[in-house]
Amino acid sequence: MDLEGFRRAGHAAIDRICEYYASIEELPVAAQVEHGYLAPALPEEAPQNGEAWSAIDADFTRHIVPGMTHWQHPMFFGYFPSNATYEGIIADIYTSAMNNPGFNWSASPAVTELEFVVLDWFAKMMGLSSAFYSNDLSHSGGGVILGGASEATLTIAIAARERALRALAVDDPTSAADPVGWRASMLPKLIMYGTTQTHSVGSKAAMMLGIRFRALDVARKDAYGLRGATLAAAIAEDQAKGRVPFMLVATYGTTNSCAIDNLDEIADARRAAPHLWLHVDAAYGGVTWCLPEERSPKLMDAFNTHFDSLSTNLHKWGLVQMESAPTYVRDRRLLADALSMTPDILKSKGMDPAALNDLRNLQIVLGRRFRALKVWFILRSYGQEGFRAHLRRSIALAQRFAKGLEALPQLEIVNPPRWGLVMFRVRAPPGGDVDALNHAFHDVLLTHDKELFLSPTVLPEVGYCERLVVGAPSTTEAHVDHALQLVAACAEAVVPAE
Amino acid sequence: MDLEGFRRAGHAAIDRICEYYASIEELPVAAQVEHGYLAPALPEEAPQNGEAWSAIDADFTRHIVPGMTHWQHPMFFGYFPSNATYEGIIADIYTSAMNNPGFNWSASPAVTELEFVVLDWFAKMMGLSSAFYSNDLSHSGGGVILGGASEATLTIAIAARERALRALAVDDPTSAADPVGWRASMLPKLIMYGTTQTHSVGSKAAMMLGIRFRALDVARKDAYGLRGATLAAAIAEDQAKGRVPFMLVATYGTTNSCAIDNLDEIADARRAAPHLWLHVDAAYGGVTWCLPEERSPKLMDAFNTHFDSLSTNLHKWGLVQMESAPTYVRDRRLLADALSMTPDILKSKGMDPAALNDLRNLQIVLGRRFRALKVWFILRSYGQEGFRAHLRRSIALAQRFAKGLEALPQLEIVNPPRWGLVMFRVRAPPGGDVDALNHAFHDVLLTHDKELFLSPTVLPEVGYCERLVVGAPSTTEAHVDHALQLVAACAEAVVPAE
Repeated sequence: MDLEGFRRAGHAAIDRICEYYASIEELPVAAQVEHGYLAPALPEEAPQNGEAWSAIDADFTRHIVPGMTHWQHPMFFGYFPSNATYEGIIADIYTSAMNNPGFNWSASPAVTELEFVVLDWFAKMMGLSSAFYSNDLSHSGGGVILGGASEATLTIAIAARERALRALAVDDPTSAADPVGWRASMLPKLIMYGTTQTHSVGSKAAMMLGIRFRALDVARKDAYGLRGATLAAAIAEDQAKGRVPFMLVATYGTTNSCAIDNLDEIADARRAAPHLWLHVDAAYGGVTWCLPEERSPKLMDAFNTHFDSLSTNLHKWGLVQMESAPTYVRDRRLLADALSMTPDILKSKGMDPAALNDLRNLQIVLGRRFRALKVWFILRSYGQEGFRAHLRRSIALAQRFAKGLEALPQLEIVNPPRWGLVMFRVRAPPGGDVDALNHAFHDVLLTHDKELFLSPTVLPEVGYCERLVVGAPSTTEAHVDHALQLVAACAEAVVPAE
Repeated sequence: MDLEGFRRAGHAAIDRICEYYASIEELPVAAQVEHGYLAPALPEEAPQNGEAWSAIDADFTRHIVPGMTHWQHPMFFGYFPSNATYEGIIADIYTSAMNNPGFNWSASPAVTELEFVVLDWFAKMMGLSSAFYSNDLSHSGGGVILGGASEATLTIAIAARERALRALAVDDPTSAADPVGWRASMLPKLIMYGTTQTHSVGSKAAMMLGIRFRALDVARKDAYGLRGATLAAAIAEDQAKGRVPFMLVATYGTTNSCAIDNLDEIADARRAAPHLWLHVDAAYGGVTWCLPEERSPKLMDAFNTHFDSLSTNLHKWGLVQMESAPTYVRDRRLLADALSMTPDILKSKGMDPAALNDLRNLQIVLGRRFRALKVWFILRSYGQEGFRAHLRRSIALAQRFAKGLEALPQLEIVNPPRWGLVMFRVRAPPGGDVDALNHAFHDVLLTHDKELFLSPTVLPEVGYCERLVVGAPSTTEAHVDHALQLVAACAEAVVPAE
């Protein structure tokens, strides 16, 4: 493809995206294909000679679009949203055209410097203290945009482990003789905490690092949020066994039920565990800190005074395309301590080998895309007010759905709705197996997966239930009302009204 | 921004990219900005109200473009290339518009299925055996597109560690009582190998996992490639100490000098180390396996018969935008063993929790962008012949540069050129300090960083030297000749002809 060919193909692609968005409601929400549909439809090898763009582009429509589940569809209510915005597409065009890996400041100064600017913008929107601003050079706190919550949790776990081991080594004169052996001998003592409702990013990080993970109990009466007393008891119990609690993955809005761990109580319980790194996985819920009505002074004070790090995914509800997970750390030197590795070819004149302005020292990977550009475009185009209005709109729509559900006798809300999430199930008649009934309910819902997409889950002390999450900018009251009608009809199919 | 606003902004962005490519030679190759240039030029907070797109877009030109080092510039010869192609931009437009996280097959079947199709296409282009094809269901080998070599090496290291620990546990009846403690007690025994020339992705993976890394010696006389005898001696030595060599990061084209470890000798030496996972980091060099003249039957036989995994970065020289690192594993179940973690919300009806067609079971992270689309577009648009022609063109241009250098008495080539890489330095007069002279030479080159970009390094048994890597599709003979003139003039400045 030459320059003029790209101009034509590029303009056509823009028009096609416009058409996609304008007609997305005519598409089924969930892909209507069977496992293994694609390979038999395509050649077994790449063509020997280049093909015309028209043929390639036509195959995108023919083979790929039907195999997509449309996360931008106004009737997509599954998992958590994965927002796309027009401004983000344009940023991705520029990013893709320049294709800059940005590992060092010098590999492209703008990639690094814009990242710190937008991280600070968003920290201010969230109400984080200036200890977390990257461009405030009076301290070493700040952030980095990681790929998502999995990468953020693993990155933080590596830094937290490093901090704990360095502190423990100071107290143990035997550590110096064989540091690798000594460090390994300490690993069985280290323990990471989460709750039974913490996303698997926590336990998976521990598994990848070969470290114990303990899922602390949470209860329905506490809306599944971790209580300080539970944490304190676990700390005491583990310390009595000679273990060292080194990291807590607290959650602000769990995937399952939007549970919020009690950050103030956690901060208090941490006093007994000096090596415990307090991290907040706010993958979905973090953006709500931008809403003054959603953040209490008590919450902000607990976080700003006592927590070590936080990560949130702007690529969920935050209008920014993947991968965009601003991750804030009270001391970025702890990331660099654990992650810096500078071969000769990456040394530039007069550089500090663990420089906090070389992104590679703050992350697991060396190079990656220019991530800050789309955050910058989107925050400027929406403004803080527009960003907040988007969140408030989703919340209001979820409340509308919840209110509609309350009027339906066959259905019950099983957990207080929070933000965009409503959890519900069909009520069982006396003596009925409520889980079996709700599996049947979901099977009926699945027959409507052209019209709406839901992802069910299992809630402790409740059982199998549905989650409906509002978050796509395209979802309106009419869509929520239609979802309610479909849900009511499916409930009627499994529990006919008497 | 509304739909029609996006249509206008999108068309303008396409035209701007056309203008960018058409006039890229008028831009300085390296950004001409000082550390900290950007933050003072931008507001300290995101605007309260949304701004007009025209203002945002204008600021991209005003503030961001001058802070970019232009990796697509025909005079960019630093590090390794980071190719961008028109087809990849269009794929990124579609990817960004749909913004699909694709963690499960059901989250978008096309995202997963196209990934396996293009992985197989590329495996065939590279000459990998069918053991590495994802869509050949007679075995469990196959691939996944990871973000880059760092992520690939860490992912493979986690799987290799898991395989070794499971095998060792079978032989140790004490392992069952406290698996976490037993596993940690084994970690100091595990040892990962690379060479002194292996990219830091190897030692960084070991550091992140808290495992020993041993950098084996390589010599200039072997073109810095690992020899079997060196590996065999290390294995014997470490086994005598009770250690378990569990992974070798062999390299096919090191970053420093394009060194190639001797895969056939390595395969032979591995017989003594039953738990040794043989991985090839072919981040830069892997694409050359697509050239029949560059791959010997001995090489392919060694890899296809004996090696466990390989990763290569199509986003370097392979025409595909970031992040695109096809990673092939002889047994994907070993990835799933080490990386599967399935919470309730990710369970879908009748699923296998470690399903090899759920991408999240083959990688560290849960969700990420739709990566296969751009590979598909680019391989189809170029065809295998076009892809090979691009590589051959870069190689021929590097040879042209090397030939030109040989005619310049002040300069010497310090390592046999390979593929797109030529390494050279200024010759020191008798008694001169060659390293100091070459630092001075680089300082003079830096004054031309508007015109060309080079990234120097340190080569063992040689010292400080320059690397010139040809790889951008836009580079022509005229650019290489101009680079030669600049290099000659800078050499003349530090070592005037007598």
